Amino acid sequence: MAQAKLTIDLDALRANWRALDALSEGETGAVVKADGYGLGAARVAGALAREGVQRFFVALAEEGAALREALGAGPEICVFSGHMPGDTRLIRDLELVPMINNIDQMLRHVEALPGAPFGLQLDTGMNRLGMEPAEWAALRDIALAQKPVLVMSHLACSDTADHPMNAQQLQCFRDMTDGIEAPRSLAATGGILLGPEYHFDVTRAGVGLYGGLPFAGAAPVVTLEVPVIQCRDLAPGESVGYGNTFTAQRPTRIATIAAGYGDGVLRAMGPKASLMAGETRCPVAGRISMDLIGVDVTGLRAVPDTLELLGRHQTVDTLAGWAGTIGYEVLTALGQRYTRVYLGG
Amino acid sequence: MAQAKLTIDLDALRANWRALDALSEGETGAVVKADGYGLGAARVAGALAREGVQRFFVALAEEGAALREALGAGPEICVFSGHMPGDTRLIRDLELVPMINNIDQMLRHVEALPGAPFGLQLDTGMNRLGMEPAEWAALRDIALAQKPVLVMSHLACSDTADHPMNAQQLQCFRDMTDGIEAPRSLAATGGILLGPEYHFDVTRAGVGLYGGLPFAGAAPVVTLEVPVIQCRDLAPGESVGYGNTFTAQRPTRIATIAAGYGDGVLRAMGPKASLMAGETRCPVAGRISMDLIGVDVTGLRAVPDTLELLGRHQTVDTLAGWAGTIGYEVLTALGQRYTRVYLGG
Repeated sequence: MAQAKLTIDLDALRANWRALDALSEGETGAVVKADGYGLGAARVAGALAREGVQRFFVALAEEGAALREALGAGPEICVFSGHMPGDTRLIRDLELVPMINNIDQMLRHVEALPGAPFGLQLDTGMNRLGMEPAEWAALRDIALAQKPVLVMSHLACSDTADHPMNAQQLQCFRDMTDGIEAPRSLAATGGILLGPEYHFDVTRAGVGLYGGLPFAGAAPVVTLEVPVIQCRDLAPGESVGYGNTFTAQRPTRIATIAAGYGDGVLRAMGPKASLMAGETRCPVAGRISMDLIGVDVTGLRAVPDTLELLGRHQTVDTLAGWAGTIGYEVLTALGQRYTRVYLGG
Repeated sequence: MAQAKLTIDLDALRANWRALDALSEGETGAVVKADGYGLGAARVAGALAREGVQRFFVALAEEGAALREALGAGPEICVFSGHMPGDTRLIRDLELVPMINNIDQMLRHVEALPGAPFGLQLDTGMNRLGMEPAEWAALRDIALAQKPVLVMSHLACSDTADHPMNAQQLQCFRDMTDGIEAPRSLAATGGILLGPEYHFDVTRAGVGLYGGLPFAGAAPVVTLEVPVIQCRDLAPGESVGYGNTFTAQRPTRIATIAAGYGDGVLRAMGPKASLMAGETRCPVAGRISMDLIGVDVTGLRAVPDTLELLGRHQTVDTLAGWAGTIGYEVLTALGQRYTRVYLGG
């Protein structure tokens, strides 16, 4: 079997939620959009529900519907894209809470599903989702009279603690919402770490649950072990992989392992990447191809059956650094071709 | 509904196979590994089987097993990772053809499944999979006596027609196989385009089927339409998205659309990317986030319900250029959150 093994430690995930919850004022929800950041929304949310999470956030009504099937009745499922044309049936039948973004969505919601729960999103400067201050000023009294279950906004720069945008968005959010009765939410993982003035009534723990920055104290959740298909010895001058981008400078042993960008191992990592054999770092040799990667295992006495790409030594953020991206993308890129093993939960 | 729509034109896929088949000497097989380059191996292979393809290639025995379930008995399914420990049952029960990579695999195969079909992979310089010339010299007579159904190698630089590696690998392959009875295969899409001396008995059409380079004549197979969730007007000085990387220089209209790197829209494309509204190009504004992208739609008279990321105007290779990668990765990264619509087939 050449299938790589992705192990997802649900106990570590639960521990990360507890740690973020301990830092949070008020209730700590969980963001499980994009299939639980690539780790399987049903399993992830199930484990978190058993830990006591009562409010989940997804991007699309379709994701919310799948999550409701997995969780059953009870937990609140909030949908960031709000109430889009065509969403009414899912929102009603699966008891989803659309996070209304603008006046059009507000009208659609109250006309189609009068009395059905909803939340409100406000734009405090990110200019991505939510009502602008002027729109909010016009709609505010009518909207609040309908008793929204949550009024939220989102921070654009919370990964950078000293970015002036954070205080600016906080002030804007206060200006727009101080004095309202509805529960308020501003902070995701980054905002939780900014401190209690950012927390309000509900926080939305996301990437930190899955072991990623900016939550530096997160326990690693994923381990990825990739089988070695074949080893070979190269003489100096021989090359490896597409485009001959690696040429052996000395006698070199190359292991070909069974994963590639077709599994979400980002091609941009290229030769900056390495895999671990126990405590020994083995650099990637040549280009990452769709299903295969060449690895320089010259330093090993014996080549093990598998090499570790993600685990104790290399986190999603280590890989992100090699690829010039963020740990979030390393997570959501994780492919469908792995054997997935869930620990705990 | 904020779910983006990925349309896969199986008639275009079939046309691409016919075009590559017309260029090929001998039989033209199809590579459907990595879930049919991200487009759904069962649907893709089913359409190609109806077009007359009799030989398919996958990376893993597990992929082969799923493909056999989809196709039923008949077509040959060749597995590039060969016969790995633990693969025996799948190879036997699903009638897969392991493409043996080394002596260990050869012994495993003939001991576990004597008389069962297999192919052989030879390394002609890519140093990725397959037997080295010395290993082959030792094993050749014994292996050929077992009647392999295919003897193959793989080109490292076939995307670059004038790369000297091509002729070098061709010569090596001839040196290793001239005079054998078994059918031979060296060329994938790039090799097909290098000309008939690279074709031998079987070619392995891959990326060209799916509309990607180096097959410049390929018909586009995928269209990706992304719904607009919300539009807003920005004053000069306002910023968009994470990290405030886009700042409006003039009055600007921004559409927030419902896809992101969580759907395989590679984050590395960043602000080089654009989407099409009919014939009008609309640039991405700010960072691509997990589920959302800001798009500058100032140039539009009216904002349509959806914007097109992939289609007639922008191919997988256009997007790959923005991201600094190859069209293959744009294809295999395509996410699971889209509504997938298959045309024809």
